[in-house]
Amino acid sequence: MPVPKTTSPPPRIQILEVTPQVDCGRFPVKRTVGDRVDVHARIFRDGHDVLGAAVRYRPPGTTRWLELPLGPVGNDHWEGVFVVDRPGRWSFRADAWVDRVATFQDELRRKVEAGQEDLSGELSEGAVLLGRETLTVEDALTAPAGDRSGAASSLVYCVDVDRQLARFGAWYELFPRSWGGFEGVRALLPEFAELGFDVLYFPPVHPIGHTNRKGRNNALVAGPGDPGSPWAIGSEEGGHEAIHPELGTVREFERLVAEAREHGIEIAIDFAIQCSPDHPWLAEHPEWFYRRPDGTLKYAENPPKRYQDIYNVNFDCEDWKELWSALRDVVLLWVERGVTVFRVDNPHTKPVPFWEWLIAEVRRDHPDVIFLAEAFTRPAMMTTLAKAGFAQSYTYFTWKNTRWELLEFMGQLLDWSQCYRPNMFVNTPDILHEYLQRGGPPAFEARLVLAATLSPSYGIYSGYEHFENVPVREGSEEYLDSEKYEVKERRLDGPLLPLVATLNKARREHRALQRLDDVTFLETENEQLFAFLKRDGADDVIVVVNLDPAATQRGVCILPVSTGLPPAYRVHDLLADVEWTWHIGRNFVELAPGKSHVLKVVR
Amino acid sequence: MPVPKTTSPPPRIQILEVTPQVDCGRFPVKRTVGDRVDVHARIFRDGHDVLGAAVRYRPPGTTRWLELPLGPVGNDHWEGVFVVDRPGRWSFRADAWVDRVATFQDELRRKVEAGQEDLSGELSEGAVLLGRETLTVEDALTAPAGDRSGAASSLVYCVDVDRQLARFGAWYELFPRSWGGFEGVRALLPEFAELGFDVLYFPPVHPIGHTNRKGRNNALVAGPGDPGSPWAIGSEEGGHEAIHPELGTVREFERLVAEAREHGIEIAIDFAIQCSPDHPWLAEHPEWFYRRPDGTLKYAENPPKRYQDIYNVNFDCEDWKELWSALRDVVLLWVERGVTVFRVDNPHTKPVPFWEWLIAEVRRDHPDVIFLAEAFTRPAMMTTLAKAGFAQSYTYFTWKNTRWELLEFMGQLLDWSQCYRPNMFVNTPDILHEYLQRGGPPAFEARLVLAATLSPSYGIYSGYEHFENVPVREGSEEYLDSEKYEVKERRLDGPLLPLVATLNKARREHRALQRLDDVTFLETENEQLFAFLKRDGADDVIVVVNLDPAATQRGVCILPVSTGLPPAYRVHDLLADVEWTWHIGRNFVELAPGKSHVLKVVR
Repeated sequence: MPVPKTTSPPPRIQILEVTPQVDCGRFPVKRTVGDRVDVHARIFRDGHDVLGAAVRYRPPGTTRWLELPLGPVGNDHWEGVFVVDRPGRWSFRADAWVDRVATFQDELRRKVEAGQEDLSGELSEGAVLLGRETLTVEDALTAPAGDRSGAASSLVYCVDVDRQLARFGAWYELFPRSWGGFEGVRALLPEFAELGFDVLYFPPVHPIGHTNRKGRNNALVAGPGDPGSPWAIGSEEGGHEAIHPELGTVREFERLVAEAREHGIEIAIDFAIQCSPDHPWLAEHPEWFYRRPDGTLKYAENPPKRYQDIYNVNFDCEDWKELWSALRDVVLLWVERGVTVFRVDNPHTKPVPFWEWLIAEVRRDHPDVIFLAEAFTRPAMMTTLAKAGFAQSYTYFTWKNTRWELLEFMGQLLDWSQCYRPNMFVNTPDILHEYLQRGGPPAFEARLVLAATLSPSYGIYSGYEHFENVPVREGSEEYLDSEKYEVKERRLDGPLLPLVATLNKARREHRALQRLDDVTFLETENEQLFAFLKRDGADDVIVVVNLDPAATQRGVCILPVSTGLPPAYRVHDLLADVEWTWHIGRNFVELAPGKSHVLKVVR
Repeated sequence: MPVPKTTSPPPRIQILEVTPQVDCGRFPVKRTVGDRVDVHARIFRDGHDVLGAAVRYRPPGTTRWLELPLGPVGNDHWEGVFVVDRPGRWSFRADAWVDRVATFQDELRRKVEAGQEDLSGELSEGAVLLGRETLTVEDALTAPAGDRSGAASSLVYCVDVDRQLARFGAWYELFPRSWGGFEGVRALLPEFAELGFDVLYFPPVHPIGHTNRKGRNNALVAGPGDPGSPWAIGSEEGGHEAIHPELGTVREFERLVAEAREHGIEIAIDFAIQCSPDHPWLAEHPEWFYRRPDGTLKYAENPPKRYQDIYNVNFDCEDWKELWSALRDVVLLWVERGVTVFRVDNPHTKPVPFWEWLIAEVRRDHPDVIFLAEAFTRPAMMTTLAKAGFAQSYTYFTWKNTRWELLEFMGQLLDWSQCYRPNMFVNTPDILHEYLQRGGPPAFEARLVLAATLSPSYGIYSGYEHFENVPVREGSEEYLDSEKYEVKERRLDGPLLPLVATLNKARREHRALQRLDDVTFLETENEQLFAFLKRDGADDVIVVVNLDPAATQRGVCILPVSTGLPPAYRVHDLLADVEWTWHIGRNFVELAPGKSHVLKVVR
């Protein structure tokens, strides 16, 4: 190894352990608009020179680096902060330098204090450094420092900043065909707004294929009036760009999106890449689909399961660049139509590099667009999709029902919180958990409170508010007479809706319920009572849920001294609208089956 | 962002979380010859394809990648191992691929097991894949798998492999001028070998400057017979290449090195970059030294301290490349003279990039060379020097004397163990800790046993075995009449040497004492009793030290069930040469001041 070829020697300053970062900076960390980015680095140099340091950061779409100071906090740790005030991809790095003037002053001061008298050599150095003819000790010590020499920079790290909706929102999933199409949904917007929902999510709104259409309860052969699954996308009436004529027109869709926005609601649609056998792409782009050596197309399957009503695209086809571009254009078309939230179907069965590209491509010009990953798979893939750009992801929440399961699950989410944001759906058209099937209304209440208070984003799929809990068969998580294969007559009058409205109101009024990571779990001395404290600044909310849907449970809720709460304080139950006095230490709790306390600490 | 420009789409396989690595692969991890490198990676891909994976690794000085399998251990974790069998810088990476044949067979098998009958399409695919005209189900399922498609590779990570001496060795520091020079030391080699020392470390052996020479006890003016500090390197008789004539000749030095090696001992010398005012470099290379604007040279100082007998080199000088090269050539010259271990003086006051370059440069052709960092500074710099290439480092050991201090200190070393190897010196010419000053012989015994059993590398500086414990003044850690400034008459007859010999023998016979990270700390119910278990395979050694140099202490040594030791077992005390029966659970212990048990578990 020869001596380095650079003219100057390599920087002597070391900048290590820069955070926040994920996977050594391979992926961006995530924040939402208004967040602080707390930057840390280990900064040091050989010898005793006085160092200065800064975080340099660049908002999206700009080329100039802004700067804020990093300050030493001991043991070579330096810290600083910048605030991200708009969505898009931000960059930052840590810079450090020797302040030669401050170093000179520091040494001179120590010599003066030690009584050294002949400082003429030192002052001649200082004069050169400060650009003066001559220099006195006093002038030297009072000269302004701030010289920057021997500067070093860290690598550049990225922060993906989303709108607050990417972190905090209440979702409602509905099949528009069961609500009178777009116009039927539009008529209900004031009621959805009143209930406090932020997002209405629609399964695919495109034409549905005829060939091999599935019948009611997933029957292999559809009956004459069966509408088919919305996920079997495409017919002679069009593919991913088209709208199912029974739902309405493009114009009606656009009007719905716009009017929803006036009510503070966004319409999310589904981005599901598979095609029905009747999708126009099969004829227009046969090369995008898997074929056997004999030339026949291969429908989707996961042996022994067969999905004869859909074909997957072949991401490894020769024409992959055109395929990628076409899929991006589908998303951009719907963005043009006003959609800014996409729920993505099964992203874990498509290539991660495709998602990383697609999401960056869309967000470059539309940083307000949010992608929710319907990824129910192993942790490595779920977190990697989040790193690749999905703003939110579905979670294992529906399967975590005991205290121990919830604690372990929340621990995992907190570990992932630099890039993965959960959206806790209490049910989906595919998942009706046994706990709900057997627990009845108390189970539905408990799960609703858990989702709405543990996670800043949560959702319910329609029917939940009516306590729908009959599976297609014993041991299945599929609904009987699933809405996936038939049209229902839905109304917004479920008995659980008042609780939904109360929770959504509490969520909006309490910053403590708008973040994931401000949680402290509390001891209850009863495995059926799950309790936690959420706090954001001076906003404290204590939640206690009786996980038992069958029996009243008694226990305590222990607030440790480390919470910093006063010895005694008033709490206001946001569900029951009553007040009690609580204490540091043990507070007796008794809750009927599935009931909860959501307690605001009164200041 | 346009579609990627590559002909093929980017690899769909993700390879994340590759370990072992330090600072995202910026620096190598460290191992010694014969070690396993346990490789881990998170490997996964969208969809259900069957994956294969391997660790590819490259020994130093070779260009061909070798390969060993990585196997799945659940949840997308893959693991494998390779063994490093020679010193130098190794490289490795994780590779993964889709096995299309195994994927085809997996799907076919599931279809056969589900009773699907028309498999002609599948078999036509399989025939193409396997390169056959036709294919039966049986042929398809029994065809050898092992296809590699869609391969992906991780980044390349490095492992610096040292000789075992970098991890495990007993050091003795001596000033050869106090032992009759090189010939005097040579005469004692059989005795040093008998005591079990692996390394004899000499402070600088070069000519010592006259100008501003320090006198006895660091006096500013030397008396007529004062020899000066060996660290004030260089006189008219030569600089870093030369040998002080009173120690011997180059030829005698080489003979000493060679003869020591025959006794299993290596001679380590000091690499100290500063120069006395009389060093030839000051005249030959005035540009390598700091100068004031008036042209005068600047001696070393850390205000208000002044080191008038030495000048530091200026690593930022214009001629820095020649300076770097000259310093490297000094090291290489001593390597030619047979030296393979260097103790480096104050490396934390020189640039880290210089060390990274120098050590790589020397080890490229001489991978057996070991550098020990005399870095007493903050953790960030100490660990970074280790990352930059130092095989070993001095530690905070001398200042860690209580049970709590030792536990915290060991925890830090274990955290650093991927790249930082401690060498625990019980004393140095600069550090006589108050614990030794006040504790007398029992303190010396306790500290010796701690160093020799906690750390695979440890050292003593001569005088320790004679219990030398008088400081130059109250509150100082400097020795009275320090050997740094005068010649002593040393003899190898200290009363502590039998214990040294016993410990060194135990260390050589017990693999458990040859590693740092095989330690479990044990409860004693007495803060003065410090106990731990070390184990390597079937070799178990229990150590209990009475930290109190003034009083007998009683307590227990608790061996938990988790150790897997039998309910009762015999232990043999390697110090007292007696046997007892010990148990899982509480074992009564009583130790006189500073005394220890070093117990081998008899199998």
